[in-house]
Amino acid sequence: MTTNPTLALTKQLMARASVTPLDEGCQQILIDRLTALGFVAERLRFGDTDNIWLRRGTAAPLTCFAGHTDVVPTGPLEQWQSDPFVPVERDGKLYGRGAADMKTSIAAFVTACERLLTEQPDYPASIALLITSDEEGDAHDGTTKVVDLLKERGELIDYCIVGEPTSTAQLGDTIKNGRRGSLSGNLTVIGKQGHIAYPHLAINPVHTFAPALLALTQEVWDEGNEYFPATSFQVSNIHAGTGATNVIAGSLNVKFNFRFSTEVTADELKQRVHAILDEHGVNYDLQWSLSGQPFLTGAGRLTEVAQAAIAAETGVQAELSTTGGTSDGRFIKAIARELIELGPINASIHQIDEHVNVADIEPLSHIYQRILQQLATA
Amino acid sequence: MTTNPTLALTKQLMARASVTPLDEGCQQILIDRLTALGFVAERLRFGDTDNIWLRRGTAAPLTCFAGHTDVVPTGPLEQWQSDPFVPVERDGKLYGRGAADMKTSIAAFVTACERLLTEQPDYPASIALLITSDEEGDAHDGTTKVVDLLKERGELIDYCIVGEPTSTAQLGDTIKNGRRGSLSGNLTVIGKQGHIAYPHLAINPVHTFAPALLALTQEVWDEGNEYFPATSFQVSNIHAGTGATNVIAGSLNVKFNFRFSTEVTADELKQRVHAILDEHGVNYDLQWSLSGQPFLTGAGRLTEVAQAAIAAETGVQAELSTTGGTSDGRFIKAIARELIELGPINASIHQIDEHVNVADIEPLSHIYQRILQQLATA
Repeated sequence: MTTNPTLALTKQLMARASVTPLDEGCQQILIDRLTALGFVAERLRFGDTDNIWLRRGTAAPLTCFAGHTDVVPTGPLEQWQSDPFVPVERDGKLYGRGAADMKTSIAAFVTACERLLTEQPDYPASIALLITSDEEGDAHDGTTKVVDLLKERGELIDYCIVGEPTSTAQLGDTIKNGRRGSLSGNLTVIGKQGHIAYPHLAINPVHTFAPALLALTQEVWDEGNEYFPATSFQVSNIHAGTGATNVIAGSLNVKFNFRFSTEVTADELKQRVHAILDEHGVNYDLQWSLSGQPFLTGAGRLTEVAQAAIAAETGVQAELSTTGGTSDGRFIKAIARELIELGPINASIHQIDEHVNVADIEPLSHIYQRILQQLATA
Repeated sequence: MTTNPTLALTKQLMARASVTPLDEGCQQILIDRLTALGFVAERLRFGDTDNIWLRRGTAAPLTCFAGHTDVVPTGPLEQWQSDPFVPVERDGKLYGRGAADMKTSIAAFVTACERLLTEQPDYPASIALLITSDEEGDAHDGTTKVVDLLKERGELIDYCIVGEPTSTAQLGDTIKNGRRGSLSGNLTVIGKQGHIAYPHLAINPVHTFAPALLALTQEVWDEGNEYFPATSFQVSNIHAGTGATNVIAGSLNVKFNFRFSTEVTADELKQRVHAILDEHGVNYDLQWSLSGQPFLTGAGRLTEVAQAAIAAETGVQAELSTTGGTSDGRFIKAIARELIELGPINASIHQIDEHVNVADIEPLSHIYQRILQQLATA
């Protein structure tokens, strides 16, 4: 075959404007290709979200690829060099929304299965795909619902590969073997409004919060561990005052976020924030939002097999990392013994002119194929 | 005469919608009334602002009344119980915009002159009025310009009474014998925007500013003195972040204000703020705005005469105070040996349903008359 089949399938998926929560028929393409190889497809639509669970075989171990067909919005179209939903190659790069996040990964895993099962129709283990169309949105009706269903029927995963774009400078240089937790706080410090010339009649919430703010920014929440950097606290928004320069504001709003390691729990962080605020006599209201527990797959069978596959295919020695934002791995880890994320270079994701290196597409498929082959051996 | 002449003149002035910088003929009424008593009137229009300087006599001492015919806007008309420019008496109060700030004071001083000069046509000292129509606005073309002119021709004031509403609970309970200075800062703390999951790649301006903020709120700028409370520092506005909870803001804006005593200078405060910011390594841009130097008239001839006049007329023992916002006294003090502010109760100024007690109007006029009489005696 002279046409690169992974590139062709990637383009076919990218041509569909599947902005969250739309799937636009991408999942049907995967169903058509994979049922031809003996996969059994279950369509699982929850709310406005299309999901599929595709499985071939019942023998252990079960290796699952997890991914999403939805993409983030394009942003200003006029800033793109070409239509984001008309995939186009320029200077060795394939441009378009979803190129890196994450239609290339999906296509690469599908063609990996096609080659593997053509060469080895009696592949002795099981393969599954868990695909959602709401990873980039609120994720309520996506992977988490499928995981609930699988858990309910006791269908557990031995090895999971999430196709998120994890590479930074070179294909395969980074494997994510976990993610930090994410805990957000929406804090309102309550003061008393007044004229700036009469501060004794007012309570300035900026002033009453200042000692607690300093303490929060200086607190060492933990030291991290072998796999996680130290837990970080960051204020994203702080607002008080309406612009009038002669008025002391009646309240102050502060939004902050923790990215936390497995060395602390969300509950511990909450307690410690409340203790700091109380210690400094702050009058406040605080709403919490936990968007993800931290999860971790220690160095082991899956990370070793993945590192070996990358080295064999590209010569690159992959590093294990737990940095970055959240992914659907946070949900799947509940039913997966070992879980990693591995995909193409992430430098352009969510940006104008998103792209992947054309030369990375087929090697990624071969890395996935090597992993599937190796995990099936005892 | 059965009609209260001060009440009548107050109403006549209040019926004119002289919202800054409009005078709407108020000053012509004063000119007509006072030139009949031998005052010489000078109309001094600068830009869009009408000002008058009225003087009678050349003998020392010169006592000057300073005031403004302009009023602040009405705010939502539907919230007023009656038309703000149709003065009306209800339950012993006179309602309308300008009732307290400060058409009653102006009328009271005019009728005080009328009685005094009718009884005492050979009054042995000099009386003046400095009236502007831009005290409530930016004040650029008002009192400050008239003061410049008087200074240029060496026409200095011995005693100045600014008719601002200074009383709090009872007519005459408070005399302002000075005002604090007002110095404002507009601070931009420069950070580096980034994703909240990668804080090591960003510089969070909220965090870098936190130690300096605490230091600024805890600093003792001075202890005040006999006449001034301690200098106060207050943040009026603090803003960083666009609402997105996963982004570290690139900059932080902080607006703050000093109300400062005569124990420090504006330059000293500026230097100390810069020193605190520099000491904490803050990367910033800071714009300063000095809206008023502090001024003070110590206890002396004018304060004693005013206190005696109030006590004789109302039985109230007036306190000296330097609190509150700025007034045109900040300009006049440059050419006035002694300066006080004395007027009706200020509880409703700049508000919906502004009013004065009808029973306070004639006594205020008599207080002014007593002061004029007493100051003319050796």
